[in-house]
Amino acid sequence: MIHEIENLHARYAHALDDDRLEDWPNFFTENGVYRIATAENEARGLPLPVVYCEGRAMLRDRVQSLRHANIYEPQRYRHMMSSILIREDKNRITSTASFLVVRIMENGETMLFASGRYVDRIATKEMLYEERVVICDSRRFDTLLAIPL
Amino acid sequence: MIHEIENLHARYAHALDDDRLEDWPNFFTENGVYRIATAENEARGLPLPVVYCEGRAMLRDRVQSLRHANIYEPQRYRHMMSSILIREDKNRITSTASFLVVRIMENGETMLFASGRYVDRIATKEMLYEERVVICDSRRFDTLLAIPL
Amino acid sequence: MIHEIENLHARYAHALDDDRLEDWPNFFTENGVYRIATAENEARGLPLPVVYCEGRAMLRDRVQSLRHANIYEPQRYRHMMSSILIREDKNRITSTASFLVVRIMENGETMLFASGRYVDRIATKEMLYEERVVICDSRRFDTLLAIPL
Repeated sequence: MIHEIENLHARYAHALDDDRLEDWPNFFTENGVYRIATAENEARGLPLPVVYCEGRAMLRDRVQSLRHANIYEPQRYRHMMSSILIREDKNRITSTASFLVVRIMENGETMLFASGRYVDRIATKEMLYEERVVICDSRRFDTLLAIPL
Repeated sequence: MIHEIENLHARYAHALDDDRLEDWPNFFTENGVYRIATAENEARGLPLPVVYCEGRAMLRDRVQSLRHANIYEPQRYRHMMSSILIREDKNRITSTASFLVVRIMENGETMLFASGRYVDRIATKEMLYEERVVICDSRRFDTLLAIPL
Repeated sequence: MIHEIENLHARYAHALDDDRLEDWPNFFTENGVYRIATAENEARGLPLPVVYCEGRAMLRDRVQSLRHANIYEPQRYRHMMSSILIREDKNRITSTASFLVVRIMENGETMLFASGRYVDRIATKEMLYEERVVICDSRRFDTLLAIPL
């Protein structure tokens, strides 16, 4: 099972890094939840996510607005993942993994953009995210947060 | 076997990144050794470690002093691991793995903190570190070196 | 098969990070190709590689000139790899993997040096690279590009 999970995480990362944003909602179940939180808020149990999307339709909307509405400087991302831990019960899997995202600007400048962990509930039959929670180590966020983590 | 080793490394990394320092000694055998060296010294065969702990009791002491004595600015770490190579003989395993550690300060500032490789002897029956040698690429160290790598 | 591929990638990375450059050509088949491109050029189909080597002899030449001709400041590299995706057909495998390379200078200074993906064709019988294409996210390159990525 670990290989299938690693493969799911890997395909997700490459889709974003290859700028195939339109594929992004398809990694989630029909009602899948995607949210970004800070480690600080998560530890305090504060329900205040930085980003919250529920269901593929909302995820598609987000991609649409990224493509059409938002104006941002061209940039690339590179997701690195590590230390995947999984816990199985019944037909659901919880996966925790560390991530590091690097951002590369048009002029070539490269910076550490974000680090943290993904805490995922995965529907094993479809191999899709029921919930992906991105818990960022830093509370300082790029104001745009344009591209999904 | 590779999966069990990866799992051990992953649990170790998450314990540190989640600030569960009290769990840290439990990843070592009763007489387990933890030391930090620089690549330069290690290549020259200099026995001068930056940090040296032998046995769980000494590891626990280190955690105690981190918790109670040292005063340092709140900070988080994120460990990334990669390129694990293992070599088996009898009931002992040697594992070499690359690491990268990012440090996130209270104000959100993120920096590359350390890189290098772990060279580990692992007791396979208990799946614990008999020895974990952290060989850092850089010879420049943060003077505090507060949290274990 | 995924484990053998991961092992090949891991041995390649450690050889470079341990400064065993002379081993580097031996990771390729006799006529193996190594090239470095930018994501920008690769996406446009421009055949303009930053570096191009064909065959072990040419790879060895490159190592020779690095060792004897080029003068550069002592430095170390640390390769991190992640998100390996493989596709099998017949006796050939295509592997795509993300990478991040950190450079550590003599004085201890550490910087993000390069990020991108490896796109590899692997001869599975010998477990060697028939082709390794290093596609860098950034178009800004260190002018020396001394050590192989």
